[in-house]
Amino acid sequence: MNSTYHQGTCSRCYELFKAKVEQCNEDLNAKLAFLTMPQPTSFSDVVLFADDHDEYPVPAHKAILANRSPVLRAMLDNEMKESLSGTIKIGDVSYDALRAFVNYLYTAEVCLDQKLACELLVMSEKYQVQHLKDFCQKFVVSNLNLDNSLSTYTFAHQHNFKPIIDAALTLITASMDKLASRDVYTELKERDPGLLLEIYEAYFSKRAN
Amino acid sequence: MNSTYHQGTCSRCYELFKAKVEQCNEDLNAKLAFLTMPQPTSFSDVVLFADDHDEYPVPAHKAILANRSPVLRAMLDNEMKESLSGTIKIGDVSYDALRAFVNYLYTAEVCLDQKLACELLVMSEKYQVQHLKDFCQKFVVSNLNLDNSLSTYTFAHQHNFKPIIDAALTLITASMDKLASRDVYTELKERDPGLLLEIYEAYFSKRAN
Repeated sequence: MNSTYHQGTCSRCYELFKAKVEQCNEDLNAKLAFLTMPQPTSFSDVVLFADDHDEYPVPAHKAILANRSPVLRAMLDNEMKESLSGTIKIGDVSYDALRAFVNYLYTAEVCLDQKLACELLVMSEKYQVQHLKDFCQKFVVSNLNLDNSLSTYTFAHQHNFKPIIDAALTLITASMDKLASRDVYTELKERDPGLLLEIYEAYFSKRAN
Repeated sequence: MNSTYHQGTCSRCYELFKAKVEQCNEDLNAKLAFLTMPQPTSFSDVVLFADDHDEYPVPAHKAILANRSPVLRAMLDNEMKESLSGTIKIGDVSYDALRAFVNYLYTAEVCLDQKLACELLVMSEKYQVQHLKDFCQKFVVSNLNLDNSLSTYTFAHQHNFKPIIDAALTLITASMDKLASRDVYTELKERDPGLLLEIYEAYFSKRAN
């Protein structure tokens, strides 16, 4: 038996499993492709607007919005002004984030950067789109580094995104000595000293355990 | 290293890969669940009727129908009477098959038996829903047996479903001696002797190779 290891398994098993996984993924991906819709262009019965961008409507379908977000369903079901007018205004969001949000409701796909992930996290929380929230949380956690750790922690704390808070705290408390000399630390100290105190408390509670 | 084999791989690799496959499937299945819609109940803008069942409308959404079937898209896009009236009549189909067909367009799921699979095959061909066609063809092929081989072959031949024709022919030509004494053979001989001739030709061409 060939004992070369490939991704942690011996090469013979790797080939065997690769074929099985590919077949399984092929079936699931074909199903996904079948159920995915492109950004809506036809038969739209509702449009969304980002607060400050009245001139750029994002077309959609009530049925899709209601299926993916219980909050949007409630707005559309209950003959609120959104349902009657066929227009939904989304506050505190950029046009790009709104487009990405609506596109995600149709495709479960989005190309993220840190800024977009944070905007979409807030939207997914507000409109209760759990799948998008999980996806963005994973992205933000996997993109944590020393440079963005304090700002990410501040953001997550503000909205109570627990998995991000925990991951950021782990990173921060492991590098306390490097952080204290940075500008971002000084800024946070001035803006929100209480938050810094929580970080120190977490550091010492971790050491005590 | 434990050399016990499990599903053709050594047990250590099996456990490693099992975890990876499960994680991958979990992600894909969560995406599928997010994109799947239940049988439509709200915001419907079109209804379908099976030819002989005017009293049982099947509600749907133009956007979904158009996304899943290029034929339905053409009917709805081009301001044909279906689009203007919001009503689509589906000929030569039972009410149960129509419901299953529409449900499949929303969920990519259907619980098949041989009869339903054949009805849906004809519909998926007519409305060019390739994913459903592939699914039904696989089902019919995997349910082929000596009892249904001749009738399935006849059905597949009539609609030119190549994978089913091939699979049925393989089964039939491997059991020619058992088939000739059956009632279904006698019936086919009377109804369509040309088809039986093709079977005999396939049998001898296979023997020659």
